[in-house]
Amino acid sequence: MTDGRPNRRQLLRIGAAVGGSLLGAQRARALEADPRKLGIPLGPYGERSPFERAVRWTRESKTPETGSSFTPLHESVGILTPSALHYERHHSGIPTIDPARHVLVIHGLVDRPLSLSLTEIRRLPSVTRILALECGGNSAGEWTGAGGADVQRSHGLLSGSEWTGVPLSLLLAEAGIRSSASWVIAEGGGACRMMRSVPLKKAIDTSLLAYGQNGEALRPAQGYPLRLINPGWEGNTNVKWLRSLKLTDQPYMARDETSKYSDLMPDGKARIFTYDMEAKSVITFPSGGQTLAARGLYELTGLAWSGRGLIARVEVTVDGGRSWQRAVLQEPRLPLALTRFRLPWRFDGQDAVIASRAVDETGYVQPTRAALIAVRGTNSIYHYNGIKPWRVHADGTVTSVEA
Amino acid sequence: MTDGRPNRRQLLRIGAAVGGSLLGAQRARALEADPRKLGIPLGPYGERSPFERAVRWTRESKTPETGSSFTPLHESVGILTPSALHYERHHSGIPTIDPARHVLVIHGLVDRPLSLSLTEIRRLPSVTRILALECGGNSAGEWTGAGGADVQRSHGLLSGSEWTGVPLSLLLAEAGIRSSASWVIAEGGGACRMMRSVPLKKAIDTSLLAYGQNGEALRPAQGYPLRLINPGWEGNTNVKWLRSLKLTDQPYMARDETSKYSDLMPDGKARIFTYDMEAKSVITFPSGGQTLAARGLYELTGLAWSGRGLIARVEVTVDGGRSWQRAVLQEPRLPLALTRFRLPWRFDGQDAVIASRAVDETGYVQPTRAALIAVRGTNSIYHYNGIKPWRVHADGTVTSVEA
Repeated sequence: MTDGRPNRRQLLRIGAAVGGSLLGAQRARALEADPRKLGIPLGPYGERSPFERAVRWTRESKTPETGSSFTPLHESVGILTPSALHYERHHSGIPTIDPARHVLVIHGLVDRPLSLSLTEIRRLPSVTRILALECGGNSAGEWTGAGGADVQRSHGLLSGSEWTGVPLSLLLAEAGIRSSASWVIAEGGGACRMMRSVPLKKAIDTSLLAYGQNGEALRPAQGYPLRLINPGWEGNTNVKWLRSLKLTDQPYMARDETSKYSDLMPDGKARIFTYDMEAKSVITFPSGGQTLAARGLYELTGLAWSGRGLIARVEVTVDGGRSWQRAVLQEPRLPLALTRFRLPWRFDGQDAVIASRAVDETGYVQPTRAALIAVRGTNSIYHYNGIKPWRVHADGTVTSVEA
Repeated sequence: MTDGRPNRRQLLRIGAAVGGSLLGAQRARALEADPRKLGIPLGPYGERSPFERAVRWTRESKTPETGSSFTPLHESVGILTPSALHYERHHSGIPTIDPARHVLVIHGLVDRPLSLSLTEIRRLPSVTRILALECGGNSAGEWTGAGGADVQRSHGLLSGSEWTGVPLSLLLAEAGIRSSASWVIAEGGGACRMMRSVPLKKAIDTSLLAYGQNGEALRPAQGYPLRLINPGWEGNTNVKWLRSLKLTDQPYMARDETSKYSDLMPDGKARIFTYDMEAKSVITFPSGGQTLAARGLYELTGLAWSGRGLIARVEVTVDGGRSWQRAVLQEPRLPLALTRFRLPWRFDGQDAVIASRAVDETGYVQPTRAALIAVRGTNSIYHYNGIKPWRVHADGTVTSVEA
């Protein structure tokens, strides 16, 4: 094996290695003569198989309008998340918005305040980008070392989508940015009045007004009919049900960037406006709660992402960090998107601690939990991106390695 | 405008151009003081907005288990199709398959016939590819010049997905290909016993055994739990509910590659095994059945694809073919995937015939209908890839230009 990529000879015997049985005479006869019934008719809007039951996980709550629901990453394949399984983080539930009545207002320090309908926005030049979206609070439990028994709970506030929308720069230019403007205050249409302050440079450089997700209108839970997308930034800044963009000469210091979504450091001061999601990765198979049914060859796989750009490489250990080997990265790698990594691994029935470590194009290396805590302490809720180990036990069960 | 890409100055005034109104004092006050109610709680599996009603279109039929349902391309954004809206072409309905009981058999001219469960297949090294899938019979009505009033009916047997699965080459190598083998006969699990003959070279070079689509298990209508994916080839060869791969020394000349899915030429002979889908494109907005509400600037957009590789460029005419300009292609362009193209266009209230023409990396140019018919005649059902014109009328309505 070179750089984790299996060579042809190794792959030749994989079928037998995973337990594929030789074809018996009985099964061969069955192939020849099974009667089959007509299936279900064609339909207007498809459903998944009744045998597929992966769902978002949510904590029981007396206020189900506020909270998080977690993407079932242990069942993920590829770099996209079905919209129906995209993670949610809501502060006041999902508003039901009639797009024909929704308006985006651009005002404040502009020459020509604008009020735009969805129809008007959809006429404008648009772009499409595949991007990761991660809640700033993803893996929050890892700070205390009890981040969840499985990858859905520990890392499931993470999803990948194809977003389509209008570059915000077009509309800002149309509105006419006054020279005194340096911030854009984005406000969502939910009851909580979510507001985030976005530096004008970001808004001009990369922000999108997204109306499309994964080939259709974005889902209500994702901000229908219009969401601000800030590529690479913590999920919270990607304001849902976007209704207002106000240009100002200072940030608002809104509730959701001061009392929340700020990072309390060991010295009692808090970092705020920590927008970028640093490089991170996690093994999704095998991961906590799964079981390897037998010894033999498996494909170990997971996801890596960085709010700073491309994933340059992912290294995997299967011996608790003593040695690391390079995983195969699925091409095309896309900046700020999820990157799927894979590595063939033979489970030989011995206890093994496995983990992945992402390196992005800036050279940033995903830290260990210890290294992260040495800098950040354990007061934080947000921006945990430490290496996540799983223990594969001799009996094939997999558990989280708690700190 | 250079190569169809709007420059900054042109974009500066787009907002006003599409009718965005200046913000009135009344609306500004409303922004400050609207009371808002709590929304819908978090949920396990999301739904689209009740305001979104795009569905696949199907002809009325007394045998709804056989037929086609068409993707609503006029509402498409980006290069992916939601799995719920992926086109269908079924010959005997959609079987309901328990993946725990499904088996893939690889037999015939192999040294070690194999019988593999889904669990075994999912352990194997996998790859992910974003690909277009087009029914060989897409746009069949265009041969007679009455292909449908809108792009859903004329081109809707086309969808884009992210597929994840195992390279077939791995399992063929494991089974041991005998030197006499030159074809692979793929058989599906539906009642119609769909069978297609695939040259061994294709099977080794690019075929996938797909179990994942758009980040989850593929949908029943798309072949759950296992589909043969032949990138770039007509949809029918991408056998759904795949249960058997038999290696042979000749093709089977099965019903669905002789009486169907073959191309009757003007001289009465038929082309068979016309697998590759040639370069093709279509404008999805504005397209038949849509209406431009006002004069002004619009983003004209559509899709291009080629079964031979990358789309090199897409040219658009807005004057009935007298002149052509290059559209902007959304990056990253991916070989054999849908490519989204876009071009700003000012509708000035004059009658206009608009059309797109794709050129792929082999240099192949999408032909006019006349050029295509000059070679192929009009007996064909399959593989229509002629240029598709739409007429934008002075009143803003859009209709299909019938031949």
